[in-house]
Amino acid sequence: MSFQMPEYHEPDFKEAKFQNAPDVKVAVAEKDGVNPDYYHSTSMYPEYFKIDGNWVLAEESRMDSSVVIREDGRLDVVEMRNIKKGDRVILGRSENCEEGIYLHTTGFEEESSATDNFVFRYGRSRETAFSKDYDNLYELLKYEKEHGSILWVMGPAFAFDSDARNAMQALVEHGFVDGLMAGNALATHDLEGGLLKTALGQDIYTQELKPNGHYNHLDVINLVRRSGSIPSFIEEHGIKDGIMYALVKNDVPFVLTSSIRDDGPLPEVIANAYEGQNAMRNMVRKATTVICLATQLHTIATGNMTPSFRIVDGVVRPLYIYTIDISEFVVNKLHDRGSLSAISMVTNAQDFIVHVAKGVIDNY
Amino acid sequence: MSFQMPEYHEPDFKEAKFQNAPDVKVAVAEKDGVNPDYYHSTSMYPEYFKIDGNWVLAEESRMDSSVVIREDGRLDVVEMRNIKKGDRVILGRSENCEEGIYLHTTGFEEESSATDNFVFRYGRSRETAFSKDYDNLYELLKYEKEHGSILWVMGPAFAFDSDARNAMQALVEHGFVDGLMAGNALATHDLEGGLLKTALGQDIYTQELKPNGHYNHLDVINLVRRSGSIPSFIEEHGIKDGIMYALVKNDVPFVLTSSIRDDGPLPEVIANAYEGQNAMRNMVRKATTVICLATQLHTIATGNMTPSFRIVDGVVRPLYIYTIDISEFVVNKLHDRGSLSAISMVTNAQDFIVHVAKGVIDNY
Amino acid sequence: MSFQMPEYHEPDFKEAKFQNAPDVKVAVAEKDGVNPDYYHSTSMYPEYFKIDGNWVLAEESRMDSSVVIREDGRLDVVEMRNIKKGDRVILGRSENCEEGIYLHTTGFEEESSATDNFVFRYGRSRETAFSKDYDNLYELLKYEKEHGSILWVMGPAFAFDSDARNAMQALVEHGFVDGLMAGNALATHDLEGGLLKTALGQDIYTQELKPNGHYNHLDVINLVRRSGSIPSFIEEHGIKDGIMYALVKNDVPFVLTSSIRDDGPLPEVIANAYEGQNAMRNMVRKATTVICLATQLHTIATGNMTPSFRIVDGVVRPLYIYTIDISEFVVNKLHDRGSLSAISMVTNAQDFIVHVAKGVIDNY
Amino acid sequence: MSFQMPEYHEPDFKEAKFQNAPDVKVAVAEKDGVNPDYYHSTSMYPEYFKIDGNWVLAEESRMDSSVVIREDGRLDVVEMRNIKKGDRVILGRSENCEEGIYLHTTGFEEESSATDNFVFRYGRSRETAFSKDYDNLYELLKYEKEHGSILWVMGPAFAFDSDARNAMQALVEHGFVDGLMAGNALATHDLEGGLLKTALGQDIYTQELKPNGHYNHLDVINLVRRSGSIPSFIEEHGIKDGIMYALVKNDVPFVLTSSIRDDGPLPEVIANAYEGQNAMRNMVRKATTVICLATQLHTIATGNMTPSFRIVDGVVRPLYIYTIDISEFVVNKLHDRGSLSAISMVTNAQDFIVHVAKGVIDNY
Repeated sequence: MSFQMPEYHEPDFKEAKFQNAPDVKVAVAEKDGVNPDYYHSTSMYPEYFKIDGNWVLAEESRMDSSVVIREDGRLDVVEMRNIKKGDRVILGRSENCEEGIYLHTTGFEEESSATDNFVFRYGRSRETAFSKDYDNLYELLKYEKEHGSILWVMGPAFAFDSDARNAMQALVEHGFVDGLMAGNALATHDLEGGLLKTALGQDIYTQELKPNGHYNHLDVINLVRRSGSIPSFIEEHGIKDGIMYALVKNDVPFVLTSSIRDDGPLPEVIANAYEGQNAMRNMVRKATTVICLATQLHTIATGNMTPSFRIVDGVVRPLYIYTIDISEFVVNKLHDRGSLSAISMVTNAQDFIVHVAKGVIDNY
Repeated sequence: MSFQMPEYHEPDFKEAKFQNAPDVKVAVAEKDGVNPDYYHSTSMYPEYFKIDGNWVLAEESRMDSSVVIREDGRLDVVEMRNIKKGDRVILGRSENCEEGIYLHTTGFEEESSATDNFVFRYGRSRETAFSKDYDNLYELLKYEKEHGSILWVMGPAFAFDSDARNAMQALVEHGFVDGLMAGNALATHDLEGGLLKTALGQDIYTQELKPNGHYNHLDVINLVRRSGSIPSFIEEHGIKDGIMYALVKNDVPFVLTSSIRDDGPLPEVIANAYEGQNAMRNMVRKATTVICLATQLHTIATGNMTPSFRIVDGVVRPLYIYTIDISEFVVNKLHDRGSLSAISMVTNAQDFIVHVAKGVIDNY
Repeated sequence: MSFQMPEYHEPDFKEAKFQNAPDVKVAVAEKDGVNPDYYHSTSMYPEYFKIDGNWVLAEESRMDSSVVIREDGRLDVVEMRNIKKGDRVILGRSENCEEGIYLHTTGFEEESSATDNFVFRYGRSRETAFSKDYDNLYELLKYEKEHGSILWVMGPAFAFDSDARNAMQALVEHGFVDGLMAGNALATHDLEGGLLKTALGQDIYTQELKPNGHYNHLDVINLVRRSGSIPSFIEEHGIKDGIMYALVKNDVPFVLTSSIRDDGPLPEVIANAYEGQNAMRNMVRKATTVICLATQLHTIATGNMTPSFRIVDGVVRPLYIYTIDISEFVVNKLHDRGSLSAISMVTNAQDFIVHVAKGVIDNY
Repeated sequence: MSFQMPEYHEPDFKEAKFQNAPDVKVAVAEKDGVNPDYYHSTSMYPEYFKIDGNWVLAEESRMDSSVVIREDGRLDVVEMRNIKKGDRVILGRSENCEEGIYLHTTGFEEESSATDNFVFRYGRSRETAFSKDYDNLYELLKYEKEHGSILWVMGPAFAFDSDARNAMQALVEHGFVDGLMAGNALATHDLEGGLLKTALGQDIYTQELKPNGHYNHLDVINLVRRSGSIPSFIEEHGIKDGIMYALVKNDVPFVLTSSIRDDGPLPEVIANAYEGQNAMRNMVRKATTVICLATQLHTIATGNMTPSFRIVDGVVRPLYIYTIDISEFVVNKLHDRGSLSAISMVTNAQDFIVHVAKGVIDNY
């Protein structure tokens, strides 16, 4: 059974509530990074705004942000910190046309109940059956490889285990990775694996702790900093395997963001968290499926900026977001989105990625 | 790389400490189920006792039990509750020959460091690399299928997911299962899957909750009780798949033990917990590898009664015990054994079992 | 603010659906321990059955059991295993009068929303605010001490920590404990604390591991078995503190049930799990508040047999059930009951019990 | 029993290995932020370096950093990123005088075994006994209030619960807080509590979700940004309670660092993660006890930069570091330090802080 794209249904703007709704109110921001009072804040769902009598969709949305009407009538969804003095910010805190704002939570509903393919399910736990989720994911990834864009978000555990690292490398090489977002640690330990076959000084296959192995990741960082960039390091040191290697060789873009836990950091890591958020959101803008693996920090950050829909060639489609983590606490943080397009799985991410590689790559 | 059996080294009984040691002291139990004061209590390691000047190994040991010298000189390792009035119980609480007792913790040491195959490793967590553990396990299972005996201990989660249930069925059918120990719930929900394709009323593939599905497991229990046994139920209701089905069809023995959580129970469940322990220990006596999956209760119970060694054809070999659970808390409970033969993996047991089936069954 | 008892509202039996409903159908059990087909199975809510034109409440209910009409017209809620050949078992699997059965889930609703005291709340996690839950619990316990019956269900962790053990002892001595249900381990380690100041050989205050401390709990079990009972052991060995001591001295009944994990067991432990369930349910029948602490096994077992209501002096009132555990997975297992009377808190049970002692005992 | 400071024992530099050791080797950094090859990297323990025949202690150390010899002979422990071209960096990767470097792990050992007060203990879990840890901590905090400096590191959960928030406010007001490190969320939700009595829109006492409550934290951030700073916001909006309020009123310094999860951020948050690390390390330099509560990110970050010792008035003393978290996985991340001064407790941080307030503040 191959992947079936759910069809999107626009609201019926001929209904009285839409016809009778007022235009949205607007106020001008008086200061950079500060909203006017009673600013509207967005959700992850499609939202329509009545402007000059027409209902306009904010096309690239995200949660907890403001809507700015540009000179050309375009609607930009802008984080508070990115508001500029003079921006015309939409006001209103109701969602059913009362103030010219309509939140459309049911755009995909009919199809989902018809096909029962990606139904929202409650209460994911270690005891949930995930067989169909795997099968659905395989079909989705094959579809997205051809027609969409798959963004991966990873914690460092992937670099600790050789099978997981190999599986991720293979997914890159077979075209299932259109972008990657991670932190300094994933890149560092993956490159450590490439140079020294260890992660944090432990052999990534045998788990053997190498003599003075606690120097390994520091040495790798030092060498990358000396080389000036990850691609230069890979070139100069003859790295031949790993996730970062595969990304660089296949021209897959990546964003590495910082955290106060970092050693180093590597040159590519964006030190400023909010510039990091901007770079992440720019990656998310292209994604049609996002897969978050074994990282509470990056998963929540990504979830905050990922809407439930994407417009491709003028057509609204779901933006699928997966969370895979061994902790129910973490998956439930994102699962609370309650959207049909958010799927959570409770497992070890190493096992997950090996299953996925076997599920989508022939003869893996 | 195929499995290499570690070689066992007996203590060197010519050493002075063995030569100079006294014979063990013994006292007679005065009451059923009660030890004499200062009784010796066993560990999971091989233990030798000096009797009439000779060092004798207690061949079938387990933790926290007493050693009884039988009429014929044989040493039985007996749980306190199974002590009978008149039993001659060994006394002593030192382990290095002082009282005629020697605890041999290093019998396999040389080999393990030579091959580095099954080295004890500290600090298993969700971030540990498990690639080599999987590979080792595949080799071990292939070896044990031919030369040993593989005992599985399972929580109910296996019956909740169709892929996991299929993988376990396949492992039975391909000869990788020589015994199974579980509770009422695993058997109940597996049979529910066979009769109704659900577990606790949810479709085991789609997760869809069936109308009045909360009756499903109760109905299954009721029908099995009416049939009188699991094999009769399978026969009468035409069950054609599942774990219990495969066990029955392939004459693989199973022990189902009770807990106060049980519905029903099914007829085969041993209501008395201590008779249940006796039945479990009898299964363990035959096992050379034990794999405990996703059950805190049964894992700890099994760990308590499983020694670190087994005698096969007169030769002492390791008894391997694996614990697979998604909770570090649970795996560490058993991991504290600290034996080379205890391996823990932190993951979802459904993913684990599918990996194992793919790892040991050709073209699975 | 003192505790306010929510008022119960009977269904309005004058409504057409009640008036027009048929009498329930009944079938006779043909075999001990087996239900007739299409038996009705109960929930934790009040359920009414139309018999000879009258709606009758099953007064002492529990989940997943059958309803038997006795000769005298009384309705007994009976577990499948306790059904006897000849029992007249109610049939039907609808809940809104269609087959003479009415499930009343909203009996307390108005009051709860009025007082907002014990509102059901979603999504308990480590980050939930528990201040008001504590305050509510303190008020509830003070009320129940005078007018109700408080049943405690405990895992072994309480015996491991001296402050927790002292707090629980104090709660018994101050009249806040009307019954206790636990396993062999809680009693064993608590008595070990009384005799040797250790639990599993570790000092319960300093955590220091005593020499040969792994014998301590086995010795305690052996001595209790020799004494023949916990009260005799306490008497003979001059135990002067602890939870079991306080229960015995204050004539508070306790039920100890078995598990396959047990060492020993102590003489009072009920070996047969289903006789254990019967004894537990008999304790639950008297309880108006149940507090389950740090035990997955006993918490789920208790939850299965605990209804959401209790009849005291002919009046229906809520039966409150609390689950306290450090694992979201465990509390959510019970929280899924979704009743106003089920409250979950995610914390270390040792800290919890010390807070409770300080909250309800003057100058503790 | 009041707190006893362990006495520090310098190495005996008259021993042959110290006398015969060579001076350390040094190389000059050729590039900002890059170490010379074979640079030495520090641990959390006191480390001595032989320079011109004398053994010199690096006084303000931290893990995973380089040692730079300044013009005046002072030793600075410098993170790789802060190395400047021309810095004279110590080389060497042995720790027992071979290369003029000595790592002193046993400086406090005698005392600790004598008093058994703060002994390192293995295997912290939810079942560990924490009574003595609490008592020790109370004594330590009373001592540190007078003679030391107490630094708190907090996750956002403290702002979610009114009792926890009150307890922390009281600890500030009674002088038990000399500094606080946290993220944007803790400050935001605490100020939300001060302005609106909610956190993330939920009443911090009743847990009631307020209408449009999801705007609350965004509004608070917006208002603080408009005010320009947290103190101005507190002043302008008449905030009268909470953690941030207490810090500002009592002139207790705080450092707020960024993460990619942040909304806003508040004006005081340091956007650049590495400038944030610098600010954190400057706070840590003054601390004698550090308490990390319910935050994986900040706990690990703090642990990385916190040595096991501190020099006060020329005397070396332990720097105590506590980790309190509900997850064994998190506490074990820090517990692996294995130092006598690292104590972990597994519990809900809300319960912990209320216990601490009651334990150190009279009549709380």
